[in-house]
Amino acid sequence: MAASPTPLRARAAAGAPLRVLGIDPGTLRLGYGVVEVGNQLGSARGHLRYVECGVISASPRDPRPTRLAEIGRGLRDILIELRPDAVAMEEAFFGKNVQSTLALGEARGVAIFVAAEHGLTVSGYAPAKVKQSVVGHGRATKEQIGYLVRALLSLRRVPEPDAADALAIAICHARAAVVPHALRRRA
Amino acid sequence: MAASPTPLRARAAAGAPLRVLGIDPGTLRLGYGVVEVGNQLGSARGHLRYVECGVISASPRDPRPTRLAEIGRGLRDILIELRPDAVAMEEAFFGKNVQSTLALGEARGVAIFVAAEHGLTVSGYAPAKVKQSVVGHGRATKEQIGYLVRALLSLRRVPEPDAADALAIAICHARAAVVPHALRRRA
Repeated sequence: MAASPTPLRARAAAGAPLRVLGIDPGTLRLGYGVVEVGNQLGSARGHLRYVECGVISASPRDPRPTRLAEIGRGLRDILIELRPDAVAMEEAFFGKNVQSTLALGEARGVAIFVAAEHGLTVSGYAPAKVKQSVVGHGRATKEQIGYLVRALLSLRRVPEPDAADALAIAICHARAAVVPHALRRRA
Repeated sequence: MAASPTPLRARAAAGAPLRVLGIDPGTLRLGYGVVEVGNQLGSARGHLRYVECGVISASPRDPRPTRLAEIGRGLRDILIELRPDAVAMEEAFFGKNVQSTLALGEARGVAIFVAAEHGLTVSGYAPAKVKQSVVGHGRATKEQIGYLVRALLSLRRVPEPDAADALAIAICHARAAVVPHALRRRA
């Protein structure tokens, strides 16, 4: 099998903002959120800008394979339309039981494969790391995440929970990818 | 989201043999096996013919997203080359722990999505049902499955385990899809 293509995009390499897609996959709904983060040296580095968020829904009446296909195609449409430079999701968030863990894994596999088809490797972050990055501590509630996401991105209202979670993951990756370098340069 | 396309193929509808792909997905290896089953009324109905089997391997040195992409692309190549009319895999075979169950789910999700992209819905069979169909009882060993797969398909040797399991799943689906109708007609 051939190795996957390199995810490096010319846009990001040239110092343009890094566009990050965060996803919160599930078998019925996939939350997504896109932010841009300033990537140039100077004051714009690390600055967050909201691009879009939402939820892809599959019909609960469809069998699981059909739902997974619907969600995968919806994600592909987002990748084509919004052209992120990086994709991130939470890692190792287990379901309530083996059946739901297997189902969650299936949704994650679809997302990972669709991203790979666009030359993107999905970065994983532990749930506590995402909360730490957005709220400042690892045990934040859903409400706190929504509130901070709204504040950090200057949104008029709190997005629906799955979309807010996806934006939190995007913010976490944006900060991990860009801000540490700026801090290192200042040190 | 649009509904997935109908999986009905003209070849199968015209009474030609039904070509079934069985898959045994994993994060490092995906076993596959293809059989054809006679679909016409008369003595050829239910007759099994071996087409191909094998294993798609990913490099254990690659990160999991890369491995999943390699396995998904390998499966896509098989669908393009061998053009099955139906795809089947075992359902609800859980890993040893939550981590391996999640990983198995990811591999299954990739397979389900790649099949859906070719208009095919993956049928699921419980492991005991597959063993029952091939060996005659639900508690067969790996060795018994390999031996019976070899005998049923008149192979010169037993395929490697992942490929033999995939052939067993293909045989199970072939028999479930075709033989009961023949029995009903005789009744």
